Amino acid sequence: MTMTERLLEATKEIWDGYNETPFVKGIADGSLDHEKFKYYMIQDYLYLLDYTKVFSIGTAKAKNLDAMRLFAGYIHSILDGEMDIHRAYMMRLGIAKEEAEQTPVALDNLSYTSYMLRVAYEEGEAEVMAAILSCALSYEFIAKKILAEYPAADKHEFYGEWVSGYASDSYHEDNEVLSDLMNRLTEDYSEKRKQHLVDIFTACSRYEAAFWDMAWEMRQ
Amino acid sequence: MTMTERLLEATKEIWDGYNETPFVKGIADGSLDHEKFKYYMIQDYLYLLDYTKVFSIGTAKAKNLDAMRLFAGYIHSILDGEMDIHRAYMMRLGIAKEEAEQTPVALDNLSYTSYMLRVAYEEGEAEVMAAILSCALSYEFIAKKILAEYPAADKHEFYGEWVSGYASDSYHEDNEVLSDLMNRLTEDYSEKRKQHLVDIFTACSRYEAAFWDMAWEMRQ
Amino acid sequence: MTMTERLLEATKEIWDGYNETPFVKGIADGSLDHEKFKYYMIQDYLYLLDYTKVFSIGTAKAKNLDAMRLFAGYIHSILDGEMDIHRAYMMRLGIAKEEAEQTPVALDNLSYTSYMLRVAYEEGEAEVMAAILSCALSYEFIAKKILAEYPAADKHEFYGEWVSGYASDSYHEDNEVLSDLMNRLTEDYSEKRKQHLVDIFTACSRYEAAFWDMAWEMRQ
Amino acid sequence: MTMTERLLEATKEIWDGYNETPFVKGIADGSLDHEKFKYYMIQDYLYLLDYTKVFSIGTAKAKNLDAMRLFAGYIHSILDGEMDIHRAYMMRLGIAKEEAEQTPVALDNLSYTSYMLRVAYEEGEAEVMAAILSCALSYEFIAKKILAEYPAADKHEFYGEWVSGYASDSYHEDNEVLSDLMNRLTEDYSEKRKQHLVDIFTACSRYEAAFWDMAWEMRQ
Repeated sequence: MTMTERLLEATKEIWDGYNETPFVKGIADGSLDHEKFKYYMIQDYLYLLDYTKVFSIGTAKAKNLDAMRLFAGYIHSILDGEMDIHRAYMMRLGIAKEEAEQTPVALDNLSYTSYMLRVAYEEGEAEVMAAILSCALSYEFIAKKILAEYPAADKHEFYGEWVSGYASDSYHEDNEVLSDLMNRLTEDYSEKRKQHLVDIFTACSRYEAAFWDMAWEMRQ
Repeated sequence: MTMTERLLEATKEIWDGYNETPFVKGIADGSLDHEKFKYYMIQDYLYLLDYTKVFSIGTAKAKNLDAMRLFAGYIHSILDGEMDIHRAYMMRLGIAKEEAEQTPVALDNLSYTSYMLRVAYEEGEAEVMAAILSCALSYEFIAKKILAEYPAADKHEFYGEWVSGYASDSYHEDNEVLSDLMNRLTEDYSEKRKQHLVDIFTACSRYEAAFWDMAWEMRQ
Repeated sequence: MTMTERLLEATKEIWDGYNETPFVKGIADGSLDHEKFKYYMIQDYLYLLDYTKVFSIGTAKAKNLDAMRLFAGYIHSILDGEMDIHRAYMMRLGIAKEEAEQTPVALDNLSYTSYMLRVAYEEGEAEVMAAILSCALSYEFIAKKILAEYPAADKHEFYGEWVSGYASDSYHEDNEVLSDLMNRLTEDYSEKRKQHLVDIFTACSRYEAAFWDMAWEMRQ
Repeated sequence: MTMTERLLEATKEIWDGYNETPFVKGIADGSLDHEKFKYYMIQDYLYLLDYTKVFSIGTAKAKNLDAMRLFAGYIHSILDGEMDIHRAYMMRLGIAKEEAEQTPVALDNLSYTSYMLRVAYEEGEAEVMAAILSCALSYEFIAKKILAEYPAADKHEFYGEWVSGYASDSYHEDNEVLSDLMNRLTEDYSEKRKQHLVDIFTACSRYEAAFWDMAWEMRQ
């Protein structure tokens, strides 16, 4: 079992809950209120700014040039790629960039990014990767599970773009690169260190679950 | 208005809620279930380990010897002082030190300490102090408010020690030292930086509120 | 006087010494031994890996999206731009990438990057920028001073590329962007904080001087 | 071979040079100029402030309460113990505390502490310990070697206190505690991680050598 497989195995129960949350269900069948999605979009935009910072510290903690380049590549692609998707939705929803940046970060959001940043400052490259992976992999998992149940979800006039983006081959390939690095970095890890990675990944998976609930309830 | 006064002013509403939480009310009138208090004691013990780490990074971020000594003094007094109070309660409640250290940190607890540690790593000495002050000052505020309403609360056979400890003169004097340093460190602060300190202190005050709710519900 | 002008003013004497070092003189008149340049190239390559890490922590410390993007942009351009120039020279000098990466970092080099990284972890975005600026600006200063004295230095068959690269308009424009950010970040800075930036910039300028001496003596 | 033994084995040659430096020789035979010692005392005082910060970050990086307490204990004992010895000498030499704190840190000194602090921020508890150990253990090594050659060195009217302090049983016992923790922390370390600890310890040992030279030359 690779390290990534072990992380997924340990959090199976939490992950099975994601597509049962009312927010994700609403994306899946297209019934989600646009106000809730707008709230989510803005919070996710703010999340990505801090998520980028986690990759930045990963770049600083990397022990070789390959890992450095990989972490650094994501800083670039989030700031100029993934955030463009957000900006597309933000345009459709009439959210000005300034409105997004001035919206206060919700406490659940702040908790999640603070945990990742704390791990990033306290630990090494593989631990940073464990903090990163939960968000990255779960979005693919959720989008593909939506499509398995609602095969036309990626054609929905409003939520289709979200579903197709995270179910895409290119998003999958990016995730493969992250998983491969994780597996490589932990090749000589002791059982104790591997368990610690499971703990980090589990905490992040629980924060992901809280994020979906937060979005549904539009918590402050 | 000193910086500390400004912090307290900005969070008045949140602080007014502390003594209205069922958990604090239960300490005040002595009706709190010991099981809930046991849960709280263990989580607070785990909290203090990370709280000590915030002071440690404060020591490393301090710009002069006086501030360094002050931060460092708290590392010592928490590890060997405040935690002794916890150990006294833990003994009465039959909690072995090992049981406490092996109890998983609840997610609300982890969120709060992660936020403080993130601030500690990201920012400077005054910002670290803003993160520290909310917990330190609110315990005195809560204990004194309990005594104002329940003048015999410090004589309660079980919860009296908790109330008298945080309402004590020595605890107050320690807090004065922290407040004074905060005021000194921010003497030449711009309005923008002061507002940022308010934001940090407010976030921590919200985490304090969540901690009391967590304790009442004995959340995982 | 802008902040950047103040930094340059304070270190004028140290900077005036750079073009007087035998190593820089050797680049200027083309007499520098290729063995010494090879040693320098490898050490500078190793330096850039850590320099990139300083920008990475700057990205994580940035307080707004513009500053974040600017720091992050340099991570990208160093890893994929400036290091390509190094790789060009390394090819001409027959240095394999593996040889470079396995060469031990010289102690003077380690001291300089450790100082910048320490500042990056300890301080905020403007202080990180002060640590970054000395290297960035002094290379332009040195290359242009070489050209003022040796107008054909940028046509030298071996060292010309080095001189023309750092005397180029595009390198100058990049430096303008850094200087502008520095000036913007420090607009509301107190005198004490400005003096601290001068101290950081001065320390880095001294490390630059030591780097040129190290290169000449090919120190371990 | 324990981890500590391996560190000492790897740096034998560097350590053998310490007692050959003119500065240490001057302490050994009592011939050292007081001006040079005064310079050293002030630089070492400034060094200890940053050395304390390394222990502080070690406290924050510690993975269990025992290691935390040990790191934290040193913060306390350096600030209130070892620095008292310095203060005693400083009194005899007529150095006011303010004079010491306002003396600029010499560049070699700054390089050494910056390297340790960089390691502390970048790495984990065992790596922090590797950075700490070189200074701690080498002072005992030097003082005992002085006594082996100059049996009355600890009775010298001026330098005797320095020699007897670092050759004392209590200093040795403190070092045993540090070495034991190092050995415990690295029990399950892979060869790669052990070699990395050797690299850190070696860099610090080289910085120790440079420190003695700096003191002799009273470098700025």
